[in-house]
Amino acid sequence: MIKMADGVTAKFSRTSALLCVAIVVGSLPSSFADSSGRRSPAKQWSWDCDAVIGQCRKVPVTTPGTGGLGLEACRLTCGRAGALWPMPTGTISLGSLLSPLNPEGVAFTYTGQSEGTARLIAEAVRVFQGNLRALVPRGAGQRRAGAARDLSILVSVAASPGDDLLTWDTDEGYSLRTTAGMDGFVDASINASSFFGARHGLETLSQLVAWDDNGGRLVVAADASVLGDRPVYPHRGLLVDPARNFLPMTDLYRQVDAMASCKMNVLHLHLTDTQGFPYTSRRVPVLTDNGALQGMAYSPADIASLVHYAKVRGVRVLPEFDAPAHAGAGWDAASERLGKGQLAVCVNQQPWRKLCIEPPCGQLNPVNPDLYPLLGGIYADMAEDFGAVERLRGSNLTAPLLHMGGDEVHLGCWNSSAEIIDWMESNGYPRTKEGFLALWAEFQARALVELDRVSGVPATAILWTSDLTSLDVVEDYLDKSRYVIQAWMPAAETLPLKLLDKGYRLIFSTKDAWYLDHGYGNWKGSSISGYPFHPWQVVYDNGLPPRTRGGSGGEVLGGEAATWGEMVDGVTLDAKTWPRAAATAERLWSDPRGSGRRAKSSWLWARTRMMSHRERMVSRGIRADALQPKWCYYNEGECA
Amino acid sequence: MIKMADGVTAKFSRTSALLCVAIVVGSLPSSFADSSGRRSPAKQWSWDCDAVIGQCRKVPVTTPGTGGLGLEACRLTCGRAGALWPMPTGTISLGSLLSPLNPEGVAFTYTGQSEGTARLIAEAVRVFQGNLRALVPRGAGQRRAGAARDLSILVSVAASPGDDLLTWDTDEGYSLRTTAGMDGFVDASINASSFFGARHGLETLSQLVAWDDNGGRLVVAADASVLGDRPVYPHRGLLVDPARNFLPMTDLYRQVDAMASCKMNVLHLHLTDTQGFPYTSRRVPVLTDNGALQGMAYSPADIASLVHYAKVRGVRVLPEFDAPAHAGAGWDAASERLGKGQLAVCVNQQPWRKLCIEPPCGQLNPVNPDLYPLLGGIYADMAEDFGAVERLRGSNLTAPLLHMGGDEVHLGCWNSSAEIIDWMESNGYPRTKEGFLALWAEFQARALVELDRVSGVPATAILWTSDLTSLDVVEDYLDKSRYVIQAWMPAAETLPLKLLDKGYRLIFSTKDAWYLDHGYGNWKGSSISGYPFHPWQVVYDNGLPPRTRGGSGGEVLGGEAATWGEMVDGVTLDAKTWPRAAATAERLWSDPRGSGRRAKSSWLWARTRMMSHRERMVSRGIRADALQPKWCYYNEGECA
Repeated sequence: MIKMADGVTAKFSRTSALLCVAIVVGSLPSSFADSSGRRSPAKQWSWDCDAVIGQCRKVPVTTPGTGGLGLEACRLTCGRAGALWPMPTGTISLGSLLSPLNPEGVAFTYTGQSEGTARLIAEAVRVFQGNLRALVPRGAGQRRAGAARDLSILVSVAASPGDDLLTWDTDEGYSLRTTAGMDGFVDASINASSFFGARHGLETLSQLVAWDDNGGRLVVAADASVLGDRPVYPHRGLLVDPARNFLPMTDLYRQVDAMASCKMNVLHLHLTDTQGFPYTSRRVPVLTDNGALQGMAYSPADIASLVHYAKVRGVRVLPEFDAPAHAGAGWDAASERLGKGQLAVCVNQQPWRKLCIEPPCGQLNPVNPDLYPLLGGIYADMAEDFGAVERLRGSNLTAPLLHMGGDEVHLGCWNSSAEIIDWMESNGYPRTKEGFLALWAEFQARALVELDRVSGVPATAILWTSDLTSLDVVEDYLDKSRYVIQAWMPAAETLPLKLLDKGYRLIFSTKDAWYLDHGYGNWKGSSISGYPFHPWQVVYDNGLPPRTRGGSGGEVLGGEAATWGEMVDGVTLDAKTWPRAAATAERLWSDPRGSGRRAKSSWLWARTRMMSHRERMVSRGIRADALQPKWCYYNEGECA
Repeated sequence: MIKMADGVTAKFSRTSALLCVAIVVGSLPSSFADSSGRRSPAKQWSWDCDAVIGQCRKVPVTTPGTGGLGLEACRLTCGRAGALWPMPTGTISLGSLLSPLNPEGVAFTYTGQSEGTARLIAEAVRVFQGNLRALVPRGAGQRRAGAARDLSILVSVAASPGDDLLTWDTDEGYSLRTTAGMDGFVDASINASSFFGARHGLETLSQLVAWDDNGGRLVVAADASVLGDRPVYPHRGLLVDPARNFLPMTDLYRQVDAMASCKMNVLHLHLTDTQGFPYTSRRVPVLTDNGALQGMAYSPADIASLVHYAKVRGVRVLPEFDAPAHAGAGWDAASERLGKGQLAVCVNQQPWRKLCIEPPCGQLNPVNPDLYPLLGGIYADMAEDFGAVERLRGSNLTAPLLHMGGDEVHLGCWNSSAEIIDWMESNGYPRTKEGFLALWAEFQARALVELDRVSGVPATAILWTSDLTSLDVVEDYLDKSRYVIQAWMPAAETLPLKLLDKGYRLIFSTKDAWYLDHGYGNWKGSSISGYPFHPWQVVYDNGLPPRTRGGSGGEVLGGEAATWGEMVDGVTLDAKTWPRAAATAERLWSDPRGSGRRAKSSWLWARTRMMSHRERMVSRGIRADALQPKWCYYNEGECA
């Protein structure tokens, strides 16, 4: 079955394309003669690739208008991986043929079995074309468009109908080839087993295109291939936190754009906390009515829109409903108004230092049996809104239904509640740390029953590391077939390895490398000092254990960079998150290691590509931070 | 003389204003009845001022649509200084009368002698009105505009014609009163001795206006006065650095907007360095042609536009031409092409660690006599472009002609040049640290002669602290009547006090408090670690010595926050600079100290106002960072 997309604005006009044949260039990028003689004023340098060392070298422009490539155009085919981010794991061949490209001339053909996939591909191609257009500087226009080639993309996806669900088992691999055909087109072919692989192929293709700043036009690497590229880890996430500071939809969309640029695939929304409940629950609306600060909440339509937007960009959205701690906003009102007793304790109580980690306090009341059906209601809302049920029921593949939180329970809070203490006494729980942990585990077990009720099958959920995941109790309390554990301890902590050895599946959010909100001081009380900032180099060099380890059944599913929200809202979310989260992305896709072909595991070997990728993100409207002086950008290796 | 501005779009229509009389409210903000019954959905709280503790307290909205103020509206008149930033030094009385305000109904009357001032005031009122409009959330519109009052501003400026020059002697003080007149207008009167004072009065007036999020309208404090407010220090600056990463004009304009919001008055442009020369020199164009990276340079028209834009907002633009170190970009080409011998040494040489502080290296050649006329050419260009000559010649007031840089001379660079070594030998300079310092001082003396040639009178210039400003040599080398010294050492360093005692004038850019680019890691070589981040609390608590000290003649002119540009460009300049530079601004305007009426000198007492000011900056399009969870914002004092 072959389809032509009519949703794409590009035209597939072979007549006009024939005019372009004459300008297909030879193997040397510098052979671009700019016959028009017009150049941007005062471009004093162009760049040539030194193939031996794989670096673009500055060349003085002696006669304005006489050829030479801009730096980004040079980098497309220079070095082992050009300007690709993340580093492909497959076989890379970039050739040295560049062709001028007309961003308005993009067409695609889809080969495959699934109408659903075809529709997604059409949307993904539209995104791809938007990314090409974004490379053209504002006001620059495309000069000499008549000399530029159109792009014809053949997308073949082997997926069966109904396979458009992104899970930990999805094959995200793809192969990509570009050629300058005799028909005057640049032809690109992408082969993948799933929509998600095909989308990644389009992303890679977009990274084979650059704005030639000297020539004033887009160019594409027209003799390139990236074969068998697929991620090392299936879970490559970013956590953002609209519960501490609401994040407008436009800022969430932009995070997805940024993630797509580096093939991250999980947007983890820390949706609820003591500070806010910005999620619209249909089944327990009192939580939203009172927990969404001044009405700031995502509507079901917002979530549906985000979920689709993300899917088209290869990202699934994972909601976290944090419990039993980090729950307060809305729960005080729920306790008052639902007539079901005290559903949460310590809510907004002072002095906060005695009852929680950060203000305001709040923790669910595990001994109130009426609490659990309400949890079930929220789980059902989230499963519906985020498409988790569809994902779970629609396939035999594994996917977490949601993130159940589970961090930082403050035993002192529960210990301050007469109701809880009485219940523990009546039910034989000692009023010790062990007793409170057992109570917490009881909460977790009952919450999981509610989750299973929603899923209809035994559900998979994610939990943060906590006292419940310590080695001596974890197997008593958390079934390794049901829970994936997200480890947020420092890199030096050995617990994650031991959990792997016990057979648990893990996601890493290494606190002293991937907590991107660190380093900006403190907001609580009268304290000023906070955690140190983690520069991109530290983010990059945070290696994870291999995906599997021994025969325990334990597995590293991947990791997440985390931009917690206490000191960030939509205004500076990009600046704090990007491009550093892109370093996490390459770690998770490529897993650069110290052996064999991928011996170059340190950030030092990624630096130039990182700088190019940052500029690419900026071209797409992402307000990513700068990492070096522009002079260093233009003079590769001179600032080392 | 009385003038009406026709440049302001507001209309001065007394007929329609009369309709508003009925809605003038009493002394309690909570008496706003919202007769329309329409409210934003799910605003669960309003706020009342607790006058005893000076905090706005949350009140549940029990019946939607029945009054109550949004938080920012409440804060306008709550506490000693409402939401004003920086804290006025004069007498503050905020009343408690709020009036709905129509942002489209702004008119002003100017009383004064100067046509020039009248024109500037007209522009400043337009900016003021833009700031009011910016408070209205996108899409919110102004509800019930018919009930809102127009604003009539009477601006009286005592300045003589020709006084519109901002110097260290300018009286920036003003007095402001608002009243709800019987004519249906809110009347505001501003009295000042200079345009700059009047502008600050308009800024304060804009901070007496807020968006009432619950009522869906702008409100103004209509019974307020701020009398005799004037800055403690005359130099309140922000340094930005387009030499390391070019800063597009739009980003510079936005820095001026942000500075104006907190009454900062000096935008210090670090215009030249080894990495780039983004300044268009008419007299030495070879520097621009070769030093402006790929043509990125400010044209004279850009500079003129910036200088005017800044002036209207109470800011003067101070160019820095750094020398003799931090000079390289363009100078290599100048050496090649001008036929005047080697004008700079070590340019772009490797290994950089041996010849400079950061790559690329470069230092002017002090023994080449042909260098100095070129310096004079650049000085002349800058003096013309930045209006410094006009400022200097047009008054008897003191103002620096420009910033001469003078930091981080690397003696090893000069010591690597055979030409320099030979010259020193021939001229009796020992090849010791002392000898090189004498050479540097000789350079500085000859550069000053060039500067004087431009100014026509003995010029004042600013220099960074350096080996030349150390106690044992400073008086030999730097005339205290000619040089102002900008101290960038850590807060614990005692040199600045000793320089004050010697009679020098100082500007502080305390490295471990006001270097806002610190904390983001490193970009040089293979190093990762860098300086720690300075949270806003540290920025705020960086107190300066009193303006004068003993009878030495020494004077603290003020200070500058500095966002050096190695790791920032226009994309994240706001995020790194704001709102922290606003903490510097309050320190410099208000000098909160531990005695008398202004006993509350710590950030703890400024926290709530800072949070409001951050929101104000965001409303004006400044991408300032968030400092706390929104819950803390809504629950003043609960996160302390």
